[in-house]
Formats: sequence, C-alpha cells, structure tokens
Amino acid sequence: MVQLEQEGVARRIIAAIKAQIHNGTYQPGDRLPSSRAFAAEWGASRTTVTAAYNQLDAEGYLIIRQGARAIVAPGLERVSGEVPVTTGSPRNLSAFARRLLTLPSPTEQRPAKVADFRYGDLSGADFPVLAWRRASNKAILNRAARLRYGDPQGSFVLRNALQAYLWRARGINCTPDQIVIVNGSQQGLDLCARLLLDPGDPFIIENPGYVLARHAFVAAGGIAVPVAVDADGLRADSLPPARLAYVTPSHQFPLGGVLSATRRRALLAWATASGAYIVEDDYDGEYRHDISPIPPLQALDADSVIYVGTMSKTLSPTLRLGYLVVPASLRRPFSEAKRLTDRHAPMLEQDVLAELLASGAYERHVRSIRRRNTERRQVLLQALADHFGSKAVVEGADTGLHLVVWMKGTAAEQEDAIIAAARSAGIGLYPVSPLYQPTGPRPREAGFILGYAGLDTEALRRGVAVLAALLAEHR
Amino acid sequence: MVQLEQEGVARRIIAAIKAQIHNGTYQPGDRLPSSRAFAAEWGASRTTVTAAYNQLDAEGYLIIRQGARAIVAPGLERVSGEVPVTTGSPRNLSAFARRLLTLPSPTEQRPAKVADFRYGDLSGADFPVLAWRRASNKAILNRAARLRYGDPQGSFVLRNALQAYLWRARGINCTPDQIVIVNGSQQGLDLCARLLLDPGDPFIIENPGYVLARHAFVAAGGIAVPVAVDADGLRADSLPPARLAYVTPSHQFPLGGVLSATRRRALLAWATASGAYIVEDDYDGEYRHDISPIPPLQALDADSVIYVGTMSKTLSPTLRLGYLVVPASLRRPFSEAKRLTDRHAPMLEQDVLAELLASGAYERHVRSIRRRNTERRQVLLQALADHFGSKAVVEGADTGLHLVVWMKGTAAEQEDAIIAAARSAGIGLYPVSPLYQPTGPRPREAGFILGYAGLDTEALRRGVAVLAALLAEHR
Repeated sequence: MVQLEQEGVARRIIAAIKAQIHNGTYQPGDRLPSSRAFAAEWGASRTTVTAAYNQLDAEGYLIIRQGARAIVAPGLERVSGEVPVTTGSPRNLSAFARRLLTLPSPTEQRPAKVADFRYGDLSGADFPVLAWRRASNKAILNRAARLRYGDPQGSFVLRNALQAYLWRARGINCTPDQIVIVNGSQQGLDLCARLLLDPGDPFIIENPGYVLARHAFVAAGGIAVPVAVDADGLRADSLPPARLAYVTPSHQFPLGGVLSATRRRALLAWATASGAYIVEDDYDGEYRHDISPIPPLQALDADSVIYVGTMSKTLSPTLRLGYLVVPASLRRPFSEAKRLTDRHAPMLEQDVLAELLASGAYERHVRSIRRRNTERRQVLLQALADHFGSKAVVEGADTGLHLVVWMKGTAAEQEDAIIAAARSAGIGLYPVSPLYQPTGPRPREAGFILGYAGLDTEALRRGVAVLAALLAEHR
Repeated sequence: MVQLEQEGVARRIIAAIKAQIHNGTYQPGDRLPSSRAFAAEWGASRTTVTAAYNQLDAEGYLIIRQGARAIVAPGLERVSGEVPVTTGSPRNLSAFARRLLTLPSPTEQRPAKVADFRYGDLSGADFPVLAWRRASNKAILNRAARLRYGDPQGSFVLRNALQAYLWRARGINCTPDQIVIVNGSQQGLDLCARLLLDPGDPFIIENPGYVLARHAFVAAGGIAVPVAVDADGLRADSLPPARLAYVTPSHQFPLGGVLSATRRRALLAWATASGAYIVEDDYDGEYRHDISPIPPLQALDADSVIYVGTMSKTLSPTLRLGYLVVPASLRRPFSEAKRLTDRHAPMLEQDVLAELLASGAYERHVRSIRRRNTERRQVLLQALADHFGSKAVVEGADTGLHLVVWMKGTAAEQEDAIIAAARSAGIGLYPVSPLYQPTGPRPREAGFILGYAGLDTEALRRGVAVLAALLAEHR
C-alpha cells in the first residue's frame, strides 16, 4: 500500500515536470532543483523524487550526472502538450491499399429476428461443446514446458491427423509436409493471391462466384476473367490464358453445380498447358445429402491444384481454422509466406483440433451435424414447395448448407424492396445478384441464397411462410 | 453395420468402374450393364449398385437417363490412373514470392537441454492455466446463438477492455475504433508493409534490428535504409526521406536502448514533414525492471504512429494474439485488409482475453510474471558477473526479457564455433551479428542475445557456468 502511494506521488511529479517542460517553464539545459529540495517542496520522500528523476532520465527528458543537478535534455523544444484530434485523409497508401479501398465492403447487420438466411452462419447449438472443452483442457494441461513459436505450416501432430482424415474422408493423397494450417480459408486464398499473382495478371473466376475470393485476387492486382457456370460447374472447355483459376468444383458457390468429370479434365489440362495453378475451394465438401462426397480435383492432379479446406462449416466460422494442401513444389513459398504473415496458426486451437481428429470426435461430430443439416434442408425444401409451388425454382440443393431460389415472375429490380420488406418482417434475405461480375449481365429474375445451417426447423418454416406472404405483395 | 457394409461395397464398385474408365475398358459413350445385371454379377443388392451409379453420375463419370442404361460420359479420354509424383520447381511465382524466397529462413532447432537462451520463449510454468481455463470455459458456454463471422477489427468487448487497459498501463489515449486485433504482432507488421509500402519504397529500420520486421517490409518490396542505434535508441537526428520507420523505442531490439525524448521529437517531426508513418513495436513494454514503463510514441502523436502490441511476452507466443492502435484515418484500410487477409482473429481467444482483462486477472498475471522475470534477470546478471567479471559487457538489461552480452577479447569470428560448442554442451546460444544489416559492418567482438524468460533460475546459473567454461577455451 505504501509502495502504491509512492508510485502515485512519483507519477504526479513526473507529470508535473513534463508539463513544465512542455509549456516552456523549464527550457532545455535548465537545471532542476536537487532531489532533496524538490522532496521538501512536494512533501515527498527523497527516494520518491529520485525515482521520478530516474524515470525522466530514462525517458530522455532529463540528463542526470553523478554529483551534479539534473538538467533538462537539450533539443526539447516547447510544444503543445495536447495531442491534436485527427480527422482527414491518410498519408500515402500503397497500391494494394488503394485497390482494397475501391472494393465494396459488406454491410454488417444484426441477425434478423424471425429467421436470418445469411449464408455461412452455423447454429451455436451445433457446436460440440463437451468434446471441445475436454480437448481444450487437455491441450492446456499438456502444453509445452517452453512456449515458443512453432512451425509456420502448423503443428505436425495436427497435420499428421489431418492427412489421415483427408485420405479417409476426401480421397486426398498427400504428405503432412504439403499441408499448411491457416486462419480460415480466407487466409489460404490471400496467400495464393500474394504468391501467385502480380499486378496485371489475369485470373479465372466463376461467374457468379465467391466475392471474398475475387476481392483477395483483385486486391493483389489480379484482373478478373469471369467464366460462366451451369449445372456442371465452371464452363471449362475454352479457358483463356491466366495465372490461376479459382473454382468450387464440389458445390459451385453459389449456384450449386458439381463440376463434371469432363470439365475437371479440361480444367486440369488447361492448367498444365498454361502453367497456371488451380485454387480448389472445397468449402462444404462434407455436406453431400443424398450421395457420397465427390473426390476433389486435388486427387487427380496434385501438381496443379492448391486445395483449400475449412472448419468454418463443420465447427465454427469464428474459430478461424482452415488448411491448404499445396503441391510439393510450393511448400517452401507457402511456409515462408505464412511465417512472415503471422508466424503460424494459434497452437491451442491446433492442439484441440488434432485431439478431436485423433479421438474420432471430429468425425462423429461431422456425421451428427450433417444429419441435422440434411433435416434442415428437407424442411426448407418442403416449406418452399408448400408455399411457393412452381413459383420458386430451387437450385444447388444436393450438397452444402445453402440453396439458391429463383422467384418466377418476380423481376430482379424488385430484390432491394423485397429484402427491405423482409428485414422489417424479421427475415434476413440475401440476393444472388451481387455475386455476379459487377460489369456483366445479371439474372432478370429475383434470386436469393438461403443458408439454413444457422436456423432451427421451426424458424425455417416460419421464415418461408413470412417470405411467401411478403412476396405475394411484390408480384 | 449393414449400412456400413453396403457403403464399402458401393465404394469398391465405384473404384472398379472408374478404373475401367481410366484404363480404357469402358470408352466414352459406352453403355454400362443395367443395375440389375451388375448387381447379379457382383452379388450385391440393386440398391447398392444404383447408389454407386448415382455417385458416378454426380461425379460426371456416367450419365444416367430415366429408363435407359447408364453411359460413360463423353470427353473422358483414357488417362493413367496414377498421380505423378512431383519434384521440380514451381510454376510462375509472384514478385512477392520471389523476394520472399531470397530471405534467409531461420533454422528450427529443438530447445537445448541444459539451458536454451533463445529469445522469445516463455516458460510453460508461467502460463495462467487456471484463469485461462475458467475464462475459456465461460466463453464457450456463453457463445453466440449464431456462430458467424465477426468484425474484422476484432470483438468490440475486447477492444473496449483493451482501450481501458492501454490507458491505465501505457498512457495510450485511443478509441476502440482505432484498435485492430491481429494474430500476433507479426501480422500487424505485415499489414503495415502491405498497406504502406510499394515496391521500391525506402523504409527506415534500426541497425541492428528485428529481422522479421525487416523481412516483412523487404518482402513487400521496400528498400531497407538501416540507421544506427546507440544507448538512446535510433539515431533520429538526420533521417533520410522514407515511407515509414520501424522502431522499438521502449527497448530497442536487440541492444536495449531507450529512445530519448529529444530523438522522439526528432522522429515525430521527420514523420510529419515527410508524410511518413512510424511503426512503433512495443514488444516488451510491460517489462521495465527498475523504473515505470516509458510512455509510447503513440501518446505523443496519434496521427503519425501505428502502435504494435502483443500478448506473446505476457501470455504466450503460441497464442498469436496482438493488436494495433492505428491513426483514425487508417482505420478503414486496416480493417478491410484484415478482413481480406483472414476475416478476423479467432473469437474464442478474443473472448478469453477480454474476460481476463475485465476481471483484472490479466494485470495480476502481468505483475506476477514481471516479478518472476525480474528475478530471472537478477540471477542471470549475477551469474554473468560471477563467472565473467569485466570480460562480459552487458547491454540493454533495464527492460524486457533479454539482454545482450559482449565478450571482451573474443573475436566475432569465433561466434560460430562457440555456438556449436555450446549446442553440444546443451546450451542454446544466439548471436547478435545476424541482426545487423547484411551488407554493412558488424561488431568485432562476439556478442550474444540471452533471453531468460523461458528458463528457471537454476538453468540460468548452470547455463552461464557451462558457457564460462566453454568460452575460456575460445579465447
């Protein structure tokens, strides 16, 4: 307590002397009172004053020499003690920053109350709380004796467990050396952009497609070459030259097509011929409702494909856990880039995930959440059929955690009004149209992406019912 | 069990048909046996065969039409079923990747057994296990009803708690809006590099200085302008023009000088005059052993300074938790860059840290670990004095978790041999010399960075004793 009081006094002395230097009372070169004199003046102990002087010396305000009185450091001109309030524009920014600032940023909204169909959300009730806590407590207790920076590619134990899982679950044949643990798939995409694109380089992207992937490549200076998609995925038959292609072959985002075997071959042949890389975003490969998951492109050509996986759809988007499987020849660039970017992914999460994979808890959880989402999908499809009948055309519902619904007879121009009316009625609704290339043609009919993994079946039913009532007014 | 068996049979059927397509037995356009015939041939149920056919249809190998036999998809040319093993060099990489690959990467080693003086390591025994577990379990239980991507700048609750902490502990006056939570300070440096430097732009860096900061700026294309340091930190009196300056004013890394008030002013005046930003890395500001922490540059000029803070020295480097305090005018570029880079920092860690800050557990922990490190430092200094006397000159020990020791009369050329001999004797020893500008002059005497936060006092004493015996041979 006594020490705390002394610290308080010393702090006040320091502030007072600084203020007097700032306002010009003490000038550079001026001598301060001796610590004895100052202590008497302040009614403080000499120890306290000496501590304050030492602190000011360490900060460079004073110069203390043995046996002489402290002087104010030379070169300390009088300045206003006030820190100016800033507004105004920033100083020079990089070309990357300038490109970044031209990209539209998403508007953040609170979840709508009745039913929010935002894609990417999961239900908090689906999180494997017990398994996670058990594994987390174990990881903390088993922490290393020395806490030190780890391998930029991620924990070897996790990569080893993941390699076995990827073989079992996705038919991917790779070594742990080819795996890079990243902070969610977005970091994987950003690393691809930085390592594989220079300003001015063209890249192939699905149209419509995943906006944050396009943004990552555009911010790196890439020039988007949009390529249309249909029920068989990207139209890969006559691709122009490019440095890379970004694809979602298992479940095209957002329209849901599955890239056909023929097109897979055409795409791989194009990559080999043009020396390009394929970035395969397998964002929801775990969710195939009627048939088994489709093997990824990576399994066909491990030299051309960078496979991007994520735990955002199976555990939680808030965890920021994903991984890349890179061609062996890209191991070093990715590893070094990850090191420079942020050293490595957080170890605690990595240890927890490794434990969940090793114990089988992860796969049990995936099976359980897959069942729940199959049920949600069924309920949503039934509700859409009941309320809309042939007025709603559903696309891409075989896999994943979302579907696209086109509103027959409702013009695209109505989308904004419908979304606003839905929001007032407690429904979060998200259009397909912003996922199309900004400068190209867009669909004529209103279309929405309905994500269902964050909603319970009751909310799904109510949401569709409210929507149906609402749309009847906008026809 | 029955279902599992069926899945196994279906998988084998799928593999067999694919193999026959790959090796040319089935040609594009060929008709497959009816599911009934195939089932009889394989002794499988018709349901199983139908499931396999459907899967092959979904993958694009087959085409199934109502009432007709399945055919092999056109365009599937015969290819080798084997995935070629890769070696060889990667395809075209970006300029960023090429710059990155010219930078030396650190050699990873296991911790030395007797005493490893590697800087940056913390002792696992210092981690606040109970407080972390309590906060972590609370955060998991209180998770949101919907798991969704969060604010790219980080949780508002955490930024709010951090803002109050920064004011109390470091005299930083900022709003939560100016704070960006990052995955460790390295990500903060990388974001600065990307947003503030274009290829060819000069940047000021301390010489000697922190290598991974230099690498981040060089990989972005920046040209390093090394500026010498002395006991008062960076020689800021006549800086050349540049886009940014990277400094460690509270405790110059590695030599330990504290930037004097005069130089602080000179540096800030230079930044304002040249339109440059200052990146202030306050990597160990919590550890001031004899006097109070020094207020950061940020407190003097919130418009010019990007303040970089970290939990790597107070909690653990493995957590990957850090933060930036950015000028208000840079909020948007940093926020958007963080979103594109990896969406946001992991929420669970953010919630835990917010709870530790709010409950006071964080500050209690910092006081406790500061005491422990003050004791380690004392023991190390005493051991050095006992064993080396005037033959070892210690620098920069007033603050932080490391000191630099210069070996009087031992030539720098001996460093490698000493390090190798130390490693064989179970001592991890790290030289100062690689932290100097690669092309410039280096010190003539052997100098080492001794990090002590990862060692207990017994290991510190033994480590110095072994070292002394060893150095006696290299003189």
